[in-house]
Amino acid sequence: MEKTVFDFGMIGLGVMGRNLLLNMADHGFSVIGFDKDSQKTGSLEAAATKGTTVKGVGTLEEMVQQLAKPRKLMMLVPAGKPVDDVIESLLPLLEKGDVVIDGGNSHYTDTLRRVNYLHPKGFHFMGMGVSGGEHGARTGPSMMPGGDKEAYDHVKPLLEAIAAKVNNEPCTAYMGKDAAGHYVKMVHNGIEYAIMQLISEIYDILKRGLGFSNSELHEVFKQWNEGELQSYLVEITRDIFLQKDDVTGKDLVDVILDKAGSKGTGKWTSQDAMELPIAIPTIDTAVAFRTISGVKAERVEAAKIYAPNVTPVSGDKKAITAQVGEALYAAIIFCYAQGLSMLHNASAELKMDIPLQDVVKSWRGGCIIRSVLLQDFYKAYSANPQLPNVLLDGSLANIVKAKQGSLRKTILSAVEHNIPVGGLMSALAYFDAYTTERMPTNLIQAQRDFFGAHTYQRIDKEGSFHTEWGA
Amino acid sequence: MEKTVFDFGMIGLGVMGRNLLLNMADHGFSVIGFDKDSQKTGSLEAAATKGTTVKGVGTLEEMVQQLAKPRKLMMLVPAGKPVDDVIESLLPLLEKGDVVIDGGNSHYTDTLRRVNYLHPKGFHFMGMGVSGGEHGARTGPSMMPGGDKEAYDHVKPLLEAIAAKVNNEPCTAYMGKDAAGHYVKMVHNGIEYAIMQLISEIYDILKRGLGFSNSELHEVFKQWNEGELQSYLVEITRDIFLQKDDVTGKDLVDVILDKAGSKGTGKWTSQDAMELPIAIPTIDTAVAFRTISGVKAERVEAAKIYAPNVTPVSGDKKAITAQVGEALYAAIIFCYAQGLSMLHNASAELKMDIPLQDVVKSWRGGCIIRSVLLQDFYKAYSANPQLPNVLLDGSLANIVKAKQGSLRKTILSAVEHNIPVGGLMSALAYFDAYTTERMPTNLIQAQRDFFGAHTYQRIDKEGSFHTEWGA
Repeated sequence: MEKTVFDFGMIGLGVMGRNLLLNMADHGFSVIGFDKDSQKTGSLEAAATKGTTVKGVGTLEEMVQQLAKPRKLMMLVPAGKPVDDVIESLLPLLEKGDVVIDGGNSHYTDTLRRVNYLHPKGFHFMGMGVSGGEHGARTGPSMMPGGDKEAYDHVKPLLEAIAAKVNNEPCTAYMGKDAAGHYVKMVHNGIEYAIMQLISEIYDILKRGLGFSNSELHEVFKQWNEGELQSYLVEITRDIFLQKDDVTGKDLVDVILDKAGSKGTGKWTSQDAMELPIAIPTIDTAVAFRTISGVKAERVEAAKIYAPNVTPVSGDKKAITAQVGEALYAAIIFCYAQGLSMLHNASAELKMDIPLQDVVKSWRGGCIIRSVLLQDFYKAYSANPQLPNVLLDGSLANIVKAKQGSLRKTILSAVEHNIPVGGLMSALAYFDAYTTERMPTNLIQAQRDFFGAHTYQRIDKEGSFHTEWGA
Repeated sequence: MEKTVFDFGMIGLGVMGRNLLLNMADHGFSVIGFDKDSQKTGSLEAAATKGTTVKGVGTLEEMVQQLAKPRKLMMLVPAGKPVDDVIESLLPLLEKGDVVIDGGNSHYTDTLRRVNYLHPKGFHFMGMGVSGGEHGARTGPSMMPGGDKEAYDHVKPLLEAIAAKVNNEPCTAYMGKDAAGHYVKMVHNGIEYAIMQLISEIYDILKRGLGFSNSELHEVFKQWNEGELQSYLVEITRDIFLQKDDVTGKDLVDVILDKAGSKGTGKWTSQDAMELPIAIPTIDTAVAFRTISGVKAERVEAAKIYAPNVTPVSGDKKAITAQVGEALYAAIIFCYAQGLSMLHNASAELKMDIPLQDVVKSWRGGCIIRSVLLQDFYKAYSANPQLPNVLLDGSLANIVKAKQGSLRKTILSAVEHNIPVGGLMSALAYFDAYTTERMPTNLIQAQRDFFGAHTYQRIDKEGSFHTEWGA
């Protein structure tokens, strides 16, 4: 007998939509997917695990008619106009109380606009970040849903069932009001950019500075992934160094061009941080360095003119590798600190009520920036959900104190040997500035008042003051 | 006999509007100013140089009626809605062919919108950046007008008359189409942010590292301003260290709080650079560090936890000072390089046809970032107006090669002594990355393809490739 009432509907059966839906079916939910492309609806049904309830249909109407009420459905379509188009097509088909989730990479301002458009019509609209790639979607992603709490409660059991698990706890939770889900995902991606930049600089130090081969690099990242640096990005880096190129038989990493692309979420994070404002210089640097990587022709010309000379790093390779690992660890902490302090501030500024402890809890598994460090942040935010910055947490401070010397030494060595380490530097500069009681910014305020009468504050009394400089 | 036909009209008689108008009058132009505030119209006339033709009126109608046709008028009102309001008030009063200049700090996208709004109505709308502060406006500012060339030709003689002069050449020129004037001014301010950040870090090194008193700092900046570092920002820094506080009798710089404000133009520069995209990491860093300066309470708390210890820099003070000066010089070159490469790219990307040689020529005097270095850039762009980056110019390359070692040594010393130098670091990292033929970004592309199937390019053939990693 064909089932006619389904638990959940998916609009867009690309690999992410299909895999999320199959994941739901594997957890006992009856699911229905819509795609105009009949090949995709067919392959959805064909890929379903035996005994699960999975159906593919070719019209939105067919899907909506067969969903249990209040209807729960998700779209996984390209960000931008396609999302608005789907919403307009859905509107005449839905009833009040139905829940529509945008699981794509929408900018949070678009999500906020859609929430405000649909809420008066009686529909629940949720923006949800999904991280973990194709594989994660099928076996357990990290999911960051935001929107109104009532809507969340309708989908909570389903999301918790399909999410990655850490210590038997699901890597998903309510991320806050309005566009909080997409905001949290944006910052997740900003942190991802920064950590990837740091790992690439460490790779440069080990490769060009210490002369490590790819198999030595594999060993280093393998060891690191068994200790405090354990994380998805270190893990895949370990594996990347083993991959052979099918064409040439060389190590694949060596034939890949040094030009990085981007989907723009790192850029969004930096632009929005400046808007708040909150300082996330290592994410900014990661965005800038991807851009520099793109002007390859200019770099080739500049390299001819300047003939930069990366000199070998001498000393005990094992000891230096350990130091470099500690440097990476400290710098990664400073990246998370920047991103999480951004969320803390954005939560208040944009009235999203983002529960930081649930954010880091959800990031512990399934997502690209998952790492054992998240457990430390989870402890810190559990102790103080309103912590402005994880650097102010006592336990983390002890870790940072123990490691920051290695970051300093690693940068010293890189500067001496002409290896560009903009990300590591910005991480250290952030730490050094953030922990400085009195910055030299008084001079900047003096300059601003001098040439533009912008006024300044004083250390000894309240108020704004202006001086007729040189008078 | 009262003059009834005036050469130029000004809307908004704040200190900038008034001073620009008086400057025009001093150069033989008859000028009329409008402000609703009768005190301002009165003080305009009172401040006029004897024998010049200056009139203040209380309605827009009175002003417009008395202007020679095609009318030439400028508004200097706060950016945003006030500009739109003035435009709407002017519309019924103007005739086709009249020229309206927005001389305020409008965002270039607003200017572009206004150009496109007014052009079909037959009016010329120009966005013009003005730099030099109150004093500059009165005696010779740098002016960056953009818009249609026909409109520019109407105001060219007047702008050239009142601009600052360097080698008898005016510090103003046509900056390009559409919103080019405000775009150039935005980037000017971004460079300004970065140089101020660098100077503040140098101040920190000299003060906390070398233990210099304010009078010693004055001497250092005085000497620097007599050599290759000669510039307005170094000059006022020199003078700042002499200023006494009226209240306490202390050196004023020491009683100013280390929290920097901002008007947002640095932020705009960074946000728009990311949009292009083009890398300007030192401007980004300057924006981020102003933000960090603002979270004073957190810094005080963090300083208690981490108790950072700035240790004295030992060695020959004179030699170290010289080295630090060379570091500043190199880092400043890298700031200009970033801003100018942004203009080069934006010019093409936004179809503004910005003549870079005229930009740097106009910046040589009058504006906040004026410096003797601009002459070097002027030579470089005169030789090659399409130079993508001044670092690729042969003469500048020789300067950079001679100085970059000092920047490296200064950063090494700062890192060793725990002095935060994020701006200097980002300048060096930019240089090191820009001059690197092969960056470690191949690893980032491998990671992106690993977790997100984002594909990569190869070094040995064209195209986009994807690998099933670990398969």
